[in-house]
Amino acid sequence: MSRVSPTPSPLSEEPFLDEGVAARLKRDASGLVCAVVQQHDTAEVLMVGWMDDEALRRTLTSGRVTFWSRSRREYWRKGDTSGHVQYVRTVALDCDGDTLLVRVDQVGAACHTGARTCFDDHDLAAAQGHPDE
Amino acid sequence: MSRVSPTPSPLSEEPFLDEGVAARLKRDASGLVCAVVQQHDTAEVLMVGWMDDEALRRTLTSGRVTFWSRSRREYWRKGDTSGHVQYVRTVALDCDGDTLLVRVDQVGAACHTGARTCFDDHDLAAAQGHPDE
Repeated sequence: MSRVSPTPSPLSEEPFLDEGVAARLKRDASGLVCAVVQQHDTAEVLMVGWMDDEALRRTLTSGRVTFWSRSRREYWRKGDTSGHVQYVRTVALDCDGDTLLVRVDQVGAACHTGARTCFDDHDLAAAQGHPDE
Repeated sequence: MSRVSPTPSPLSEEPFLDEGVAARLKRDASGLVCAVVQQHDTAEVLMVGWMDDEALRRTLTSGRVTFWSRSRREYWRKGDTSGHVQYVRTVALDCDGDTLLVRVDQVGAACHTGARTCFDDHDLAAAQGHPDE
């Protein structure tokens, strides 16, 4: 007999986000926090996505990054269609609870365009600042 | 006679955000985009703030990072009260126009708590993911 359903880890059987974590989240009007995704070894900022409590719960318990897609209004486990999986290394919540920093091991391109990051070759014209000015 | 008002650079005399840039921005319901701030040489993610068109214009033209404070509902040029200035190096807009990556030279602590980054020592308990799972 083949077994096709994934085996959940013990942690992922918890149905709700940890209460202590949930209490620290400062969600926007849509119930979301911002998630900055960074490659764990090179420190590249790969992309930014959005998580509600359930997306964060899945991310913390499964080892795979899951976002809430604001445009499609559905959960989106990175890599399920593209193969460009993000394996979780660490997740930090910022000082005021409205932003996550998710350090990952990114398989292939993080951007849907095929670029490594969503910021590649998108620099705007900007004046540089210097301490002596 | 003393001269106390700052001397604007030629670029900062432009009253509006560049039209081409403005056309690419995908603002949220509050007219804001997310701005991830990264130390240019170490690649640390320092903090995340929010910008409207005017905050971005000031950031692109002045060499200093300016945010829109959602809580205080006012512009906030980083470092004006704390001394923890962010000097702009590069600014990139992501593939879908709703997030900026601002690379800076950060003076001192980026976090209002005095920590170097807003994510220091704030790791959540998280299961790590691995390709063989």
